[in-house]
Amino acid sequence: MRPTLAEIRRARLLLRDVARVTPVQGSETLSRFTGRPVLLKAEALQRTGSFKVRGAVVKLGSLGEAERRAGVVAASAGNHGQAVAWAARELGVSAAVFMPAEAPLAKIEATRSYGAEVVLAGASLEDAIAAGRERAERTGATVVHPFDDPAVVAGQGTLGLELDEQLGEVERVVVPVGGGGLCAGIAIALGELRPDVRIVGVQAARCAPYAGATEFAPTIADGIAVKRPGLLTRPILEDRLETVVTVSDGEIAQAIVLLLERTKLVVEGAGAAGVAALLGGRIPGEGPVCVVLSGGNIDPTMLIQVARYGLTRAGRHLVVRTRVPDRPGQLARLLTRIGEQGANVIAVEHRREGAELEVSETGIELTLLTRDEAHCVELLDRMAAWGYPTERTR
Amino acid sequence: MRPTLAEIRRARLLLRDVARVTPVQGSETLSRFTGRPVLLKAEALQRTGSFKVRGAVVKLGSLGEAERRAGVVAASAGNHGQAVAWAARELGVSAAVFMPAEAPLAKIEATRSYGAEVVLAGASLEDAIAAGRERAERTGATVVHPFDDPAVVAGQGTLGLELDEQLGEVERVVVPVGGGGLCAGIAIALGELRPDVRIVGVQAARCAPYAGATEFAPTIADGIAVKRPGLLTRPILEDRLETVVTVSDGEIAQAIVLLLERTKLVVEGAGAAGVAALLGGRIPGEGPVCVVLSGGNIDPTMLIQVARYGLTRAGRHLVVRTRVPDRPGQLARLLTRIGEQGANVIAVEHRREGAELEVSETGIELTLLTRDEAHCVELLDRMAAWGYPTERTR
Repeated sequence: MRPTLAEIRRARLLLRDVARVTPVQGSETLSRFTGRPVLLKAEALQRTGSFKVRGAVVKLGSLGEAERRAGVVAASAGNHGQAVAWAARELGVSAAVFMPAEAPLAKIEATRSYGAEVVLAGASLEDAIAAGRERAERTGATVVHPFDDPAVVAGQGTLGLELDEQLGEVERVVVPVGGGGLCAGIAIALGELRPDVRIVGVQAARCAPYAGATEFAPTIADGIAVKRPGLLTRPILEDRLETVVTVSDGEIAQAIVLLLERTKLVVEGAGAAGVAALLGGRIPGEGPVCVVLSGGNIDPTMLIQVARYGLTRAGRHLVVRTRVPDRPGQLARLLTRIGEQGANVIAVEHRREGAELEVSETGIELTLLTRDEAHCVELLDRMAAWGYPTERTR
Repeated sequence: MRPTLAEIRRARLLLRDVARVTPVQGSETLSRFTGRPVLLKAEALQRTGSFKVRGAVVKLGSLGEAERRAGVVAASAGNHGQAVAWAARELGVSAAVFMPAEAPLAKIEATRSYGAEVVLAGASLEDAIAAGRERAERTGATVVHPFDDPAVVAGQGTLGLELDEQLGEVERVVVPVGGGGLCAGIAIALGELRPDVRIVGVQAARCAPYAGATEFAPTIADGIAVKRPGLLTRPILEDRLETVVTVSDGEIAQAIVLLLERTKLVVEGAGAAGVAALLGGRIPGEGPVCVVLSGGNIDPTMLIQVARYGLTRAGRHLVVRTRVPDRPGQLARLLTRIGEQGANVIAVEHRREGAELEVSETGIELTLLTRDEAHCVELLDRMAAWGYPTERTR
């Protein structure tokens, strides 16, 4: 039941002129930060914004004529649904995508824009899955599983064929793991073509069954928040992976910001997990490493929140409450001093009320752009030395 | 003095293994929005995040041994400085980059990280240019002009050679125009290789001398905010361009958000100008069009502001002030009704003071995620029909 290299190669024929061969590029910044050559497989640039179209196209392409006529059903709050909708349109098959009612509007709209029927069903993904299954039983449509299907794994494995062609010498390949379909496909392909290359899986610490976790929480890496590994994929990963490591949501947020700023790629939480692991020193070895950026579908509103958080954590934003005497020129004086320390003031909020304020004082909250955490600490020290009380709020 | 196609081809040899051949990819979303095939040249993925390295490497590569030993000087608040710093390191030349004292910290740090000496000089770019020239006169270093130099134009023209190889049938190529170096280089290359392809320049309306503007204001497209066209570049553009069109900062912001969300590319204001023009219906013709996304160096803090603005303008964010009776369950009731209309509530702020409030009312400001402008209008109508006063604040 495991797909073979030959099946992955056949899958690739189905993808020709449909999916993109996404670029691999080196990252100078990440190489400098980690002391080893770092290459990034920019799969966020794939059609629909994630690798999922590979498996979806291959699955739909493997259906017989009668199955195609009956259409397909998928349940998903995200990339899988968009990919099935897109693949169905490309292959002229009708698709119904079942999503939880709370799914992000942007994802609902994107799925609909590819021409699929979108059904909002229930409060959770489990409800949507049940509703999708019920529909399939009633209509004879084929359910497209997000990972636990040999055709889907073969499709995702085509990314491994590309890596074999695009990479020079490489010691390790790092792959985000949710259900395990992408990682299993890559592991099969590279296991045959590059047996010396080690493969490391990465999960979000908040949802890491492959790493042995048994308790689960929501994570910004929602694309890999899968609690139950696949029956097909789990044994493949157990055979082929060197190890599975985990990363915190904070680490993922910082990786998203770094990728945004330095590589100019929008990468979603799941897609940035590999870079987070690399920056966290959790990828073994010292040789060249390729990290798969598996997708880029992050809601812009979420991206704004993450960027803000990431900048603050990296010490690039400093929000500080202080008090200045309530006399003309006093605020300007403080701002001038701060400017001389190399920080840019981007917001000043006044608070004229509050128990801690003297009658003759004004409370203010300053938002500053800073270089790094050391710069923040230095700045707070200076402010204290100048006689301003400081309270760092973020 | 105009570089020839042969010189651009020689320039390319200097760039081999140094600059990237950046990908061209189709955009389904933009093609749907504009009714014509749209291809994007993702030059934001170039080393240092913009096309400027092409010209910088070629210029530095053209220096004689004595000139190399004397080093180079550049004045820039942005991409040109980073590119010269990076090229100098690659070619083993020492570089001093003069920047205005108010330059964004991130750009100063990036320039420094490439190994250049960064000199903060004066309040404006003009001051930095004067200080750089003074240094060059004193030390014998070579000033690298950002656009008005045949070697620089030849370097930027290599992007045109790539377009010739990467594009199939294409009717028009759209290029952002600041000083005009990139556009001149592309125009020379394509003028010889693809004489049928028309080239359209795009400027920010707030700083558009090539489009005949004589008054200038700051723009988010700071990378193309050049008031004085080049002596070398202007005649080339006058000869070769079909037309120069302009776009507003609001249009640019929306283009940045669209590119971020749909193509997963971080593109700066200047880089997004072409897409803004396309979406604004300002690019003539109906055939296939290729838009050059010239760079991606936008400060994350600015990106956050732009994303917020773009989402609001596109009707994807709605901020509305209203009042609810000050009794248990009343707020929940309103939020439930809003949720039923398909909007997600992402923030609720309470205001318990204000002249317009009755004693028994609570003022609230809601931030909602909405589908589009029509959805916003519908939602405001519903709220009014339910008896809530509404004031749209953004």
